[in-house]
Amino acid sequence: MKPLPEALQALVGQDVGAIDTPALVIDLDAMDRNLQRMAEFARKHDIRLRPHAKMHKSAALARLQIRSGAIGVCVQKTGEAEAMQAGGVRDIYISNEVLAPSKLRRVRALAQALQAENGRLAIAVDSEAGVQALAEAFEGLTAGIDVFIEIDVGQGRCGVAPGPQALGLARLIATLPQLRLAGLQAYHGRAQHLRSALERRAEIGRVVQEVTQTRQLIERAGIPVELVTGAGTGTFALEAASGLYGELQAGSYLFMDADYAQNERDPAQPPFEHALFVKSQVISGNADHAVCDAGHKSHAIDSGMPQVWQRELQYFSGGDEHGILRGARLPALGETAWLVPGHCDPTVNLHDFMIGVRGGLLDGKVHRIVRVDARGALT
Amino acid sequence: MKPLPEALQALVGQDVGAIDTPALVIDLDAMDRNLQRMAEFARKHDIRLRPHAKMHKSAALARLQIRSGAIGVCVQKTGEAEAMQAGGVRDIYISNEVLAPSKLRRVRALAQALQAENGRLAIAVDSEAGVQALAEAFEGLTAGIDVFIEIDVGQGRCGVAPGPQALGLARLIATLPQLRLAGLQAYHGRAQHLRSALERRAEIGRVVQEVTQTRQLIERAGIPVELVTGAGTGTFALEAASGLYGELQAGSYLFMDADYAQNERDPAQPPFEHALFVKSQVISGNADHAVCDAGHKSHAIDSGMPQVWQRELQYFSGGDEHGILRGARLPALGETAWLVPGHCDPTVNLHDFMIGVRGGLLDGKVHRIVRVDARGALT
Repeated sequence: MKPLPEALQALVGQDVGAIDTPALVIDLDAMDRNLQRMAEFARKHDIRLRPHAKMHKSAALARLQIRSGAIGVCVQKTGEAEAMQAGGVRDIYISNEVLAPSKLRRVRALAQALQAENGRLAIAVDSEAGVQALAEAFEGLTAGIDVFIEIDVGQGRCGVAPGPQALGLARLIATLPQLRLAGLQAYHGRAQHLRSALERRAEIGRVVQEVTQTRQLIERAGIPVELVTGAGTGTFALEAASGLYGELQAGSYLFMDADYAQNERDPAQPPFEHALFVKSQVISGNADHAVCDAGHKSHAIDSGMPQVWQRELQYFSGGDEHGILRGARLPALGETAWLVPGHCDPTVNLHDFMIGVRGGLLDGKVHRIVRVDARGALT
Repeated sequence: MKPLPEALQALVGQDVGAIDTPALVIDLDAMDRNLQRMAEFARKHDIRLRPHAKMHKSAALARLQIRSGAIGVCVQKTGEAEAMQAGGVRDIYISNEVLAPSKLRRVRALAQALQAENGRLAIAVDSEAGVQALAEAFEGLTAGIDVFIEIDVGQGRCGVAPGPQALGLARLIATLPQLRLAGLQAYHGRAQHLRSALERRAEIGRVVQEVTQTRQLIERAGIPVELVTGAGTGTFALEAASGLYGELQAGSYLFMDADYAQNERDPAQPPFEHALFVKSQVISGNADHAVCDAGHKSHAIDSGMPQVWQRELQYFSGGDEHGILRGARLPALGETAWLVPGHCDPTVNLHDFMIGVRGGLLDGKVHRIVRVDARGALT
């Protein structure tokens, strides 16, 4: 049998120092603390947690979150949902619009597979055409599928406007026996990254008002709205305190990327630690800079360059395969530089596996390999 | 047997319209024209072409380039070299520094495998420590390995300074029987993207002068410098005309990304066409914008957002899974939008396969599936 590619980079039990670079490494101790803090928060606030698995794309980590109290996971893509179901996750919500008949056939098959396992599939909709296409795909299936109407609460992307447009979709869904209105999705991605706690509070306050009115509008029309789902790592304490949201979708808390760490922390939110790192090695250098072996193919840069962990060095783009490190004390040839990715989600998507270590990044050991089951699951 | 994942997205013989989105699509007719134009250029200028396979990461496309006259390929990573050798490529140059003993063991094994196939492996070096580590890894192997001294000619990344530093490394290599100095690498990545032809000409002119002097310095010390290798899609006509370079490393010409297309074309360079596209579908929208299903997980954004092909629409970031399209005539729900990626190399690296079509993006048919053999080959 062909050896697994990770065997080239790390063997369980090896010292962290032996991990070949560049490698995506999870500090499992830090991750566990993040996991527990979030689970405690959800318990304390009596709110459901449905972490976004688009971040880690790993069925093993999804199961870990569920064992810690999460109800299930969100995903963005049909292929991610398939990977989660294949990995034993039973409650999956595709928090995104799916329109193509080829994908809707897969959604139908997945819903049936989950129902057979006493599980559940839900999906977001934001157009009449989308609702009709979904209903057609589920024709003849009495068990059907749960749908959430996505409201655009300020992201400026998908979703219907709050108010009458949402009501229109709810009325349409109520006429279609294959579809069951499960609630509203009100996710405000942009608000997650407003740096000041005050700005985030103001923005989510406005959202809560608009969605509350929309919910009332729909319920006054005789259509129950069971649940409002949404919230990410940047704002979830606000949604949890709103009295409106019944479910949090935060995902990045588990790994905590450099971008979220730049937010002024809301005191109501538990603190999270960086748990995801790119281990890199210095392969070239001179008096001006050092060059490490991790570039844009090792980590995503949509939220900026990675930060260098616990060293006074700055990372500059060196292209697809290199990073340029500058600072007063440059690392020598062969030395390790640990990078904190700017954005976890697309960084994880570049890797087939993550190397889980315990005992710290300096003296720890490789504890387990975590497969990125849904890597490249684009459709 | 499990169906191949591409079978979910495209079957050979299907209409282009049936390709499920987001999908990485090659216009094979345009690619063939690019291939032929570059092959003709190299023949006409009597210069060797060693295209960079870090761009397409496909052994099938590498073999196609070699059948059109290329001598072999460059790669940046040991894992890419392994994928090329496994796919039947026999002449491979790792145009990057490799320092870790674990990787150097793989480099040794690969060199032996290629020698057994009458092939050849070469590698770049830029430090005494790197040269020593390489020599240690090849101890006892009489066939050894070809090395190129990388000169930093303005990229400000890897490479020794032109002049005495390069001579020092050449002298060291000459003392090590396992290593054979094959020449100098003088690749100027930054110059590729200078927009004006005049600026690129001035910059490469300076490089040619510096490297010519360095070559003379080494040869006067009694060490022959057989070859100078370098050049990319932005400047290769200049290197080809220099009389110094014997080998061109250009890779992007095959697919031609949006970034290179923004260069003012040097009249000495053949024109290339866009041949790589992301097919996306509009899944949401309103009066303000349309949302397509291709985001940062479908294409790289290090060289800017993708361009929308042949439509007066502008693509704005919609995050990992979405793109926001704006313009006077917005596409309707379900419509296709073809995107031209800003940068081919890291875009290809996000996909397991590329869907090759013939007969155009509108009316063509799926002709073949091209696997991205070295996708995620980071080490």
